[in-house]
Amino acid sequence: MDVLIDGHCHSVLADDDVDLGRWATEAAHSTLDGALGLALRRWCAPVVDLEPHVPVEVYAARRRELGAAEVNRRMLAAARLDTLLVDTGLDAPGLVPMSELARVREVVRLEHVAEHATGDWAEALHAATRGAVAVKSIAAYRCGLDLDPRRPTAAEVRRALAGRSGRLADPVLHRHLLWLAVDLGLPIQLHTGFGDSDVPLARADPALLQPWLVAVEPYGVPVVLLHCYPFHRQAGWLAQVFEHVYVDVGLTVAQTGTRATAVLGEFCELTPFDRLLFSTDAFGLAELYLVGAAQFRHSWRILVDGWLADGALSPADAAAIGDRVGAGNARRLYRLGQPDPPVGRVNE
Amino acid sequence: MDVLIDGHCHSVLADDDVDLGRWATEAAHSTLDGALGLALRRWCAPVVDLEPHVPVEVYAARRRELGAAEVNRRMLAAARLDTLLVDTGLDAPGLVPMSELARVREVVRLEHVAEHATGDWAEALHAATRGAVAVKSIAAYRCGLDLDPRRPTAAEVRRALAGRSGRLADPVLHRHLLWLAVDLGLPIQLHTGFGDSDVPLARADPALLQPWLVAVEPYGVPVVLLHCYPFHRQAGWLAQVFEHVYVDVGLTVAQTGTRATAVLGEFCELTPFDRLLFSTDAFGLAELYLVGAAQFRHSWRILVDGWLADGALSPADAAAIGDRVGAGNARRLYRLGQPDPPVGRVNE
Amino acid sequence: MDVLIDGHCHSVLADDDVDLGRWATEAAHSTLDGALGLALRRWCAPVVDLEPHVPVEVYAARRRELGAAEVNRRMLAAARLDTLLVDTGLDAPGLVPMSELARVREVVRLEHVAEHATGDWAEALHAATRGAVAVKSIAAYRCGLDLDPRRPTAAEVRRALAGRSGRLADPVLHRHLLWLAVDLGLPIQLHTGFGDSDVPLARADPALLQPWLVAVEPYGVPVVLLHCYPFHRQAGWLAQVFEHVYVDVGLTVAQTGTRATAVLGEFCELTPFDRLLFSTDAFGLAELYLVGAAQFRHSWRILVDGWLADGALSPADAAAIGDRVGAGNARRLYRLGQPDPPVGRVNE
Repeated sequence: MDVLIDGHCHSVLADDDVDLGRWATEAAHSTLDGALGLALRRWCAPVVDLEPHVPVEVYAARRRELGAAEVNRRMLAAARLDTLLVDTGLDAPGLVPMSELARVREVVRLEHVAEHATGDWAEALHAATRGAVAVKSIAAYRCGLDLDPRRPTAAEVRRALAGRSGRLADPVLHRHLLWLAVDLGLPIQLHTGFGDSDVPLARADPALLQPWLVAVEPYGVPVVLLHCYPFHRQAGWLAQVFEHVYVDVGLTVAQTGTRATAVLGEFCELTPFDRLLFSTDAFGLAELYLVGAAQFRHSWRILVDGWLADGALSPADAAAIGDRVGAGNARRLYRLGQPDPPVGRVNE
Repeated sequence: MDVLIDGHCHSVLADDDVDLGRWATEAAHSTLDGALGLALRRWCAPVVDLEPHVPVEVYAARRRELGAAEVNRRMLAAARLDTLLVDTGLDAPGLVPMSELARVREVVRLEHVAEHATGDWAEALHAATRGAVAVKSIAAYRCGLDLDPRRPTAAEVRRALAGRSGRLADPVLHRHLLWLAVDLGLPIQLHTGFGDSDVPLARADPALLQPWLVAVEPYGVPVVLLHCYPFHRQAGWLAQVFEHVYVDVGLTVAQTGTRATAVLGEFCELTPFDRLLFSTDAFGLAELYLVGAAQFRHSWRILVDGWLADGALSPADAAAIGDRVGAGNARRLYRLGQPDPPVGRVNE
Repeated sequence: MDVLIDGHCHSVLADDDVDLGRWATEAAHSTLDGALGLALRRWCAPVVDLEPHVPVEVYAARRRELGAAEVNRRMLAAARLDTLLVDTGLDAPGLVPMSELARVREVVRLEHVAEHATGDWAEALHAATRGAVAVKSIAAYRCGLDLDPRRPTAAEVRRALAGRSGRLADPVLHRHLLWLAVDLGLPIQLHTGFGDSDVPLARADPALLQPWLVAVEPYGVPVVLLHCYPFHRQAGWLAQVFEHVYVDVGLTVAQTGTRATAVLGEFCELTPFDRLLFSTDAFGLAELYLVGAAQFRHSWRILVDGWLADGALSPADAAAIGDRVGAGNARRLYRLGQPDPPVGRVNE
């Protein structure tokens, strides 16, 4: 899997001086004292001309010295990503448009469009998704995934809209958005599992989506379960039994660092290999692109080498599966067209 | 563990031409592109005179060439199963009676008896279970395992029966059946965890059965939690704290293929070794008997060899535990009598 | 991690003749036929002058021969624990005060104080926690962790107290106790995950505490999630996103024996290394102190050696993380003061 397509990610910061520990995890406080921090020091330090595992302070000082523009350029180059599918609906001050750093395609966040729409949501989504390759829902954050699977009636939607104040939280409106997305026909990415502290974890289990997955199955729209951890086995089962369901490792690989090898193994227990996807969910720090990509390449290789040593598959199978998980599945699902000559290669 | 007793399985198809991908998994669509497919190509290809890992199409062509009767015979022989406990309540057109292929004992599906009974369910069950070694419940599929633990009153049952239409779905009737099973005194096998797309996964966690397990504990009837994945750790805990609870790996071993080694390790974290059971849950394809048995022997050996290398147990312990999990526990629980001379051996 | 502080444990029995299988697990019946039993025979037999892995009966006979006093002394010495944080609210006949065997600090069980208080609970807790380093809640056992996060009103508490009979079970009173604990300001240990058969496992998932963790976050009181299994990944995420949340492996290490290596790896996926804690949860049998400590030292070393072999961290990082998880984090969190010269060393 030399080629990787990043199926879900965000913009990075232009600031030369950022709180690495605050941005690296989904926590509200600053911490690099865990598996992700170890992985960041391992994979990123050499890219800024330091030894692997130098202390975070040393790394941070070198980062400030180089400046964000240079660090962003180096990290993206080292990550060797073919195409980035960028969720353009997650705002923060001082973000760099990813198109300056890589070949990108757009993922449109449903809630972002709805919250900024002045008129009809269906029309707004239709307009917003021209040129987009997928849409994304954060219903898991706003109302949990244990939602009524039915398309809400026009009257229910009107009532919910009338009662709305501030950002979308009414499950009726999230159901409405999800069904509008079904009408659009683009693949629907859904946040599932862990994330920042706002996500109600016990209600973010993708298994809770099962009734909705059944309801939308006849429409033939692909549904991508992002992140999934610690419910990735549930997600794998959903992909096994529902042909329109895909599983994207997302945030999980970078956040679990060296443990990603074990976790990826669990992802592979039931998920069909033609519906398993890679992404980084990188946001803010360009380092997260590199950690996600480097850790994934490293852990996937160890995992599959173990299967080969076990006699579980042939070398040809191993190569084919890796190519599909790394890029082929995303290219097909998101209709990205034929591979272009790789971008962002360094040291070659 | 040379001897294996298959504690829960089904009949196989007589058709010479079957959709392998449709029958191998519990999915409604055809797929062999996952861990199970790799395991099937690994373990079954040599039995039909092919190299391991040949492409599925090559395997399928050879299968058609040999015909189902020969394939069924070879697979069952290669699986080297001592006795099969066959759930006779899962119908499909064109099934071969398993007694033609192996030594079998019957497991009676509660819902099957009830749905075909013309009179009193207790009497029907009593008649149907003459000669049976266990009963089986699929309440997980029909109403979920989060059921009221109490035995329903006669009035509640009458009301539920009066309102019934088509197949059983009313939780009152499933509770009624489960309590009738307690009266019978045979071990009660319960589907828990994953399965085909009809099972509401979030409500199939065996931990949800805890109140009912407490309620039936005084009756001394063994309860066998089948499959369990991805809730097998919850199942192990139930077996640890409730002496009447057993855990059967079921469907999990074949479906997770090379990953079964890791998953079996998790089964062993809390489950007492005298209450852990093996089965294949094979259905339709005789290959599933072989994949279940061969993968279990392989993965169990790797797992326990790792424990031996760790110094965690003695070789004598390792052998004894394997013998019990493979056959001894099932023989005792289901009162199968002394081991007979092995059947179905080949190449020996 | 030569130094270990046991962050949560209980007293041991003075009886010379005890049912090992009954006391070792949290089951109501006697069993040593599982991962814990193997670990006990491995780690404890040499301490009573037997070969590792001798049969349980041989071990038990030797234990009776030596007598509880000698066995308790030997086990505690072999466990090499620096300080024990003893939950003094778990009663049983014939317990030895742990202060006779080790350096101890007290953890006060909230429900124990409330159930024995004759007057105001706040005053009773204030008095009972003089000299204590933490409090402990068993709300998971009594009402589950899916509790209303709000501090109950005085009227609600009065009503609940008026309706109370026997031991505390009303969620209002458990919420009241938890909020009184917040007022105290001491770290709050909470039972989460598995335990004896009384714990409603499906309602003991620490993720269910998320709303309460959000509610108490502004108060700055540390919350320690004990045991966690099989929801330890959920616990790790809570610790990652909430700075006041700690994760203690507790009961999990001894109970899973050789599998603790794999389980500890899962604990480390998201839990920040400065908020991961060790304890044995030993109760009744002094062997549980040794199994917890010896298995933890063994499994942690294998885990981290694997990370080193993977290149995931530096040897200096590995040493520092081990020291913190084994003792440093507990010393800081529970304000235990500087390390004293080690106690309880043998064979050195």
